[in-house]
Amino acid sequence: MSGLNSVDTPETAGTEMYGLISELYPICRSITGSGVRETMGILRKHIPLTIHEVPTGTSVFDWTVPKEWNIQDAYVKNSRGEKIIDFRKSNLHVLNYSLPVNKTVSLKELKEHLFTLPEHPDWIPYRTSYYHENWGFCISHNRFLELREDQYEVCIDSTLSEGSLTYGEYTIKGESDEEILISSHSCHPSLCNDNLSGVALAVFLAKLLSKLSLKYSYRFLFIPGTIGSITWLALNEHRVQRIRHGLVFACLGDAGGFTYKKSRWGDAEIDRAAAHAVKHSGKTYEIAEFIPFGYDERQYCSPGINLPVGCIMRTPHGCYPEYHTSADDLEFVRSEYLTESYSLCLAIFNILENNLRYVNQNPKCEPQLGRRGLYATIGGQQDARARELAMLWVLNLSDGEHTLLNIAEQSGLKFETIKDAADALYAQDLLKLYSAGGAEHATL
Amino acid sequence: MSGLNSVDTPETAGTEMYGLISELYPICRSITGSGVRETMGILRKHIPLTIHEVPTGTSVFDWTVPKEWNIQDAYVKNSRGEKIIDFRKSNLHVLNYSLPVNKTVSLKELKEHLFTLPEHPDWIPYRTSYYHENWGFCISHNRFLELREDQYEVCIDSTLSEGSLTYGEYTIKGESDEEILISSHSCHPSLCNDNLSGVALAVFLAKLLSKLSLKYSYRFLFIPGTIGSITWLALNEHRVQRIRHGLVFACLGDAGGFTYKKSRWGDAEIDRAAAHAVKHSGKTYEIAEFIPFGYDERQYCSPGINLPVGCIMRTPHGCYPEYHTSADDLEFVRSEYLTESYSLCLAIFNILENNLRYVNQNPKCEPQLGRRGLYATIGGQQDARARELAMLWVLNLSDGEHTLLNIAEQSGLKFETIKDAADALYAQDLLKLYSAGGAEHATL
Amino acid sequence: MSGLNSVDTPETAGTEMYGLISELYPICRSITGSGVRETMGILRKHIPLTIHEVPTGTSVFDWTVPKEWNIQDAYVKNSRGEKIIDFRKSNLHVLNYSLPVNKTVSLKELKEHLFTLPEHPDWIPYRTSYYHENWGFCISHNRFLELREDQYEVCIDSTLSEGSLTYGEYTIKGESDEEILISSHSCHPSLCNDNLSGVALAVFLAKLLSKLSLKYSYRFLFIPGTIGSITWLALNEHRVQRIRHGLVFACLGDAGGFTYKKSRWGDAEIDRAAAHAVKHSGKTYEIAEFIPFGYDERQYCSPGINLPVGCIMRTPHGCYPEYHTSADDLEFVRSEYLTESYSLCLAIFNILENNLRYVNQNPKCEPQLGRRGLYATIGGQQDARARELAMLWVLNLSDGEHTLLNIAEQSGLKFETIKDAADALYAQDLLKLYSAGGAEHATL
Repeated sequence: MSGLNSVDTPETAGTEMYGLISELYPICRSITGSGVRETMGILRKHIPLTIHEVPTGTSVFDWTVPKEWNIQDAYVKNSRGEKIIDFRKSNLHVLNYSLPVNKTVSLKELKEHLFTLPEHPDWIPYRTSYYHENWGFCISHNRFLELREDQYEVCIDSTLSEGSLTYGEYTIKGESDEEILISSHSCHPSLCNDNLSGVALAVFLAKLLSKLSLKYSYRFLFIPGTIGSITWLALNEHRVQRIRHGLVFACLGDAGGFTYKKSRWGDAEIDRAAAHAVKHSGKTYEIAEFIPFGYDERQYCSPGINLPVGCIMRTPHGCYPEYHTSADDLEFVRSEYLTESYSLCLAIFNILENNLRYVNQNPKCEPQLGRRGLYATIGGQQDARARELAMLWVLNLSDGEHTLLNIAEQSGLKFETIKDAADALYAQDLLKLYSAGGAEHATL
Repeated sequence: MSGLNSVDTPETAGTEMYGLISELYPICRSITGSGVRETMGILRKHIPLTIHEVPTGTSVFDWTVPKEWNIQDAYVKNSRGEKIIDFRKSNLHVLNYSLPVNKTVSLKELKEHLFTLPEHPDWIPYRTSYYHENWGFCISHNRFLELREDQYEVCIDSTLSEGSLTYGEYTIKGESDEEILISSHSCHPSLCNDNLSGVALAVFLAKLLSKLSLKYSYRFLFIPGTIGSITWLALNEHRVQRIRHGLVFACLGDAGGFTYKKSRWGDAEIDRAAAHAVKHSGKTYEIAEFIPFGYDERQYCSPGINLPVGCIMRTPHGCYPEYHTSADDLEFVRSEYLTESYSLCLAIFNILENNLRYVNQNPKCEPQLGRRGLYATIGGQQDARARELAMLWVLNLSDGEHTLLNIAEQSGLKFETIKDAADALYAQDLLKLYSAGGAEHATL
Repeated sequence: MSGLNSVDTPETAGTEMYGLISELYPICRSITGSGVRETMGILRKHIPLTIHEVPTGTSVFDWTVPKEWNIQDAYVKNSRGEKIIDFRKSNLHVLNYSLPVNKTVSLKELKEHLFTLPEHPDWIPYRTSYYHENWGFCISHNRFLELREDQYEVCIDSTLSEGSLTYGEYTIKGESDEEILISSHSCHPSLCNDNLSGVALAVFLAKLLSKLSLKYSYRFLFIPGTIGSITWLALNEHRVQRIRHGLVFACLGDAGGFTYKKSRWGDAEIDRAAAHAVKHSGKTYEIAEFIPFGYDERQYCSPGINLPVGCIMRTPHGCYPEYHTSADDLEFVRSEYLTESYSLCLAIFNILENNLRYVNQNPKCEPQLGRRGLYATIGGQQDARARELAMLWVLNLSDGEHTLLNIAEQSGLKFETIKDAADALYAQDLLKLYSAGGAEHATL
């Protein structure tokens, strides 16, 4: 029924997503500031994003929109005037949200403001201090070990002042007002998997969906982590009840298998749809129970919001060593992995769009499929046999209590196989859409 | 309570069932025709079967009773007049429901009508073409490979014309109008396990049950697969609601362990009773979930009928290489396996007949069993101890919510042990039958 | 909230419990008689036990309080006047509840009254004959094998006559009338693990609890097995409804891991609390389903009583060879194991006392923990991180449907960690106690 039905992943998808990631990679993003604005500007070249600016000081539930942070430059020079740490070489070098500083310090004082990763001595860690005013630099541990007693000129040319929090929003109108929410955090600076991968995936999926005729409306959010989802929820509380299903997109470009982390509900339709798609993806996978930490699903799944929003990832945050380091770079994500993630998300949307509930119009004994040309006349063909079994499952369970996803789950067959069988039976008037009180479809 | 209580499998059961199979084996059965009539005539020597004839063209739900098929002879002769395929040697040689044919054909044309099993080159496959008009022969693959360029005389002396569908039915009246349905397909020609085994088991169990005083009524159906159960259901819709439990008998004479395939309900009393009996049979076993393909449980478990009918087998259809080939012969089934299957079915019926729900008359603390002679005075006897434990289980769970089968399941003890314990307690007035609204017994 | 909150196991606990066991060990106890009275007198030195005497002949449900049994001496002498069996060396030598006897018997007749353990030829078995009048001696199998043809003087200087059944009871009044029942059987003679260990544990836990301010009231029963719990229940039926949770203490001093046997409910709060404590005890453990045999939980869990009373043990009765033999002695139980059991029981009580249900006062998105000083400013500390996760779990699940124990179960974290997190959040007004209809707390 949905326009998503026979859509395949475009061949160019991986290249385009990787290209967007490459374009966004050098920008120094944070939870606020011009890096985010520049990022949204680039996304707008692909999808007609609405860009929101929420003023510093706005109350959002228990939180307050923070001051806006911007940075021009930062470095540490030794007494010979050599830049031994240079923001222009990697924006990870600066503790994100660092206060401005410009002074000469001893090695001892400098060290109090340096962050390293001894276990990965070549990598620069990514650190932030959004809500605790501080300044600092992040460097490789090897570089740290080379530092000698000296007077160091420390310069962070940043501002932290009244301004706004910037986020992007794009809604695709479907047949129904009920929405599918896709949320990706876009606040990290030069880190590819976390989360330019999620951002790029959301952009190109939105681009595709916008061309189709869809049952659900789709809302895409490109927001800073935590404060962004809190801000959106606080300002859009009246819209929350429209959200029927949701996914947080994160870490979708690495080589790992798929991970679906369930919503707080645990058995929401999105949970079952995503679990089904992941299980039938042909990749290794993990279905994880909800835990109240991770990405923005923390907020969507807080008890007073309690939306059915899960999180789709490849390797979960914190479970790969490159996480939050300079090694999460353009080598770490790959076009082919992005393509796989794109196909997986399409499969999930396809299930949600087509998870109809039918009623068998010949419920007493099996209908005679052969006379309708639905049975292979020559037995033994594997495909034909699988299709017949799928038809028998659909007929047997189309009692008004089972959706196609339920039938796929119970039969162990792939949703698409069940959907195709239902389409064939429907075309022969052997099925009708279930109707409870006039609704054309209903989902469990 | 039931007359089934202390009935053992008669010593002669295996021999008698095997004898009946031997007698029925040579007959060329199909879903209609004189082979079925002859078969029913033989069964009538054992039980007073009612034989029904349903005319060709009768509408039965979505289906129509087909034309009647009969066959006198069939062969293929080479140009030297030698019969290279001869129906009289094995009725499997003819594609079941073949149209009449009498002509001379080239090897090429002949081959289009030949069916073989390359993976078992010595066996003749069993093939049918009930609803797609065709003719053909089934031969061993080795014979097929010997065929040379020649002119072949092809003769099938069959008729396909107005007539009727024949089936047998036998009902044993019990104390209650509620019925246990036993259905076995009897449409296959010279194949022993599938399903002369099920037919023979049904006949001799019916013979035994007819001599007992029973709680339930028992309805035995000997019908052609698919069209037979559809026909019976269509013509007996008003009787369907009386069926409390049901079993399809199939493939019960081979050497494999027991398989019970659950009804569509999944937790019906028959499902739990059969699972219990199978688990305690001392044989390897499998409890399989319902799937909407297999034997006539497909029809009994269609959503608009939805009877609690499972299927009891040894090795399931399609899971043994001899299935639907000439190797499913009198060597493949054995008297001892038939006897085991008979005992298993008796055990299932025994559970259903005796699955009472009691109420402990001394529910506050344990009653003093010793003073009633229910405790062994000398400890340490294994049997006595097991009996005591069973009594404690029955007392503890006889709260009006648990049947004896529930207690057997929860305790892990055999139903018979629980039943014996309940009888001993009942005899001492420590139990009363549960009564809800005047009913003498109730089952979960 | 409860005074139990920050109580640790006193260092002296193990030594004191072992000391009490040593003092009680030599006494010849039975289900009635002066041995029990002497035992209760010793317990009274530690806790202000109320001692009840229930007259012989009192009807208690289906049972009758038996005659009182007392014994002064017992022996068997050979024809040379040598005591070959001597009650004064071990009170296990006499079949407990033996009738008085004084006669000379042949070896043959003597043997009819001798009990041995061939599989442990050095140990004296413990045997009773409470409800079947008899006399007898229990000896090691090696001693038995030495017996020669002779005339033996058999003397049992016992009395079985009108008297009473003695038991001890001690109630600690808490804030609520709802009670936690602790029941330990104290009828066995010189057997340490079964059940002087349970008795000693109950005494010293009662001693500790009596000094604290508690939410629940605690009722400790020191009763003879079976007849004692039946007697108490029959005479205190009106009190039964106050019992919210209960534990039978048995076999708590051996080297084995912990075993918790669930109540008949299976998912009562005591079942979940004890399972949680046992799982997080750091010892090997087993959580066993309810079965209607074992210790006095049989009576508390009979269908007409059906209290949520489980049984806490180390190695269950019958699962260690020393059970009910002279090898269950002062070597078999150890101070350190008693201490572990004591700590485990404290942990269970702590859960029950503090299993509150809170409501998150900032349910929409996460509250900003950092600004309240609840977030570690320097990341990476393991303890601080665990505390943060616990806070996030408590916030996420404090929706009025989950108690702290539910949250501990779902998060996999230890109850104490969850409790500490809840305390910290409560102190910041981020939580309020759940109130349904004015109740200050409620538990699932």
